[in-house]
Amino acid sequence: MTRAVRIIGIDPGLRRCGWGIIEAVDNRLSFVAGGTLTPPTEGALADRLAALAEGLGEVLDLHRPDEAAVEETFVNSGPRSALILGQARGVTLVVPALRGLVVAEYATNLVKKSVVGTGHADKNQVGLMVKTLLPSAVVKGADAADALAVAICHAHHRVSARRMGALA
Amino acid sequence: MTRAVRIIGIDPGLRRCGWGIIEAVDNRLSFVAGGTLTPPTEGALADRLAALAEGLGEVLDLHRPDEAAVEETFVNSGPRSALILGQARGVTLVVPALRGLVVAEYATNLVKKSVVGTGHADKNQVGLMVKTLLPSAVVKGADAADALAVAICHAHHRVSARRMGALA
Repeated sequence: MTRAVRIIGIDPGLRRCGWGIIEAVDNRLSFVAGGTLTPPTEGALADRLAALAEGLGEVLDLHRPDEAAVEETFVNSGPRSALILGQARGVTLVVPALRGLVVAEYATNLVKKSVVGTGHADKNQVGLMVKTLLPSAVVKGADAADALAVAICHAHHRVSARRMGALA
Repeated sequence: MTRAVRIIGIDPGLRRCGWGIIEAVDNRLSFVAGGTLTPPTEGALADRLAALAEGLGEVLDLHRPDEAAVEETFVNSGPRSALILGQARGVTLVVPALRGLVVAEYATNLVKKSVVGTGHADKNQVGLMVKTLLPSAVVKGADAADALAVAICHAHHRVSARRMGALA
């Protein structure tokens, strides 16, 4: 039997950052945990980012995933919004990387295609398919569902990536 | 005599991240150290950001500044570039904040105005004024000079900020 691999998916954001953890044994997936980090919306940006980093660090220390996957959010809202999202995204990439995790990135369209079968699925469809693929999942909100979808996408792609030598 | 305050200025970037440390006793400034972090340009983004975080962490642990100041880079180059810069910027904000430092942000124009006297100064003028204000500075490159300029800007503004209660 292949060893279970524990994967954390992350949907980055400064106000709401979804996270979802699954275990994969070959193609069999099971739900572990999920939620949404909500750093303070007031105060210095650096302190808000530090709260995000600390919250994500606590999740990693508690659930000890083996690999991480972060959504490559599509940016169409101007450079200022992209800079703000980038700052939160940088934190969600660096926190697992500093703990030695492999951190993969997946474009939103690929996540949707991987979970729903089409890159143009809406949030409701993603949420429904996450519940179908992970029947025992307790999905708390759209951000957590998106994060679980990223984790599922990574579970599907990591096998082929490993075959190509991209993962240890 | 007022206690010396040690300030790190940071000019964020994923390929080249300038840093410069000064000490301020009231209005008297002195140079401590400066340089440029150059994370690997190849490999996974998360690993490049982790190298940036580790490099900056080593600088903080070695020189133990009391406060940090990060340049608020003006973004005029499209959402994709802004996202990339944002990711590096998020890391440079969060690393000192996680160590408990106050992290201030200053717009590029304010940094230039504070050091050169005009918000439209070019890089050469900034470098020359940094050498004038910190005669003993060993300035290694334009990014380190910019970072020292951010530190000088913070030294000028922190007194008034403290008067307004923004700093402890």
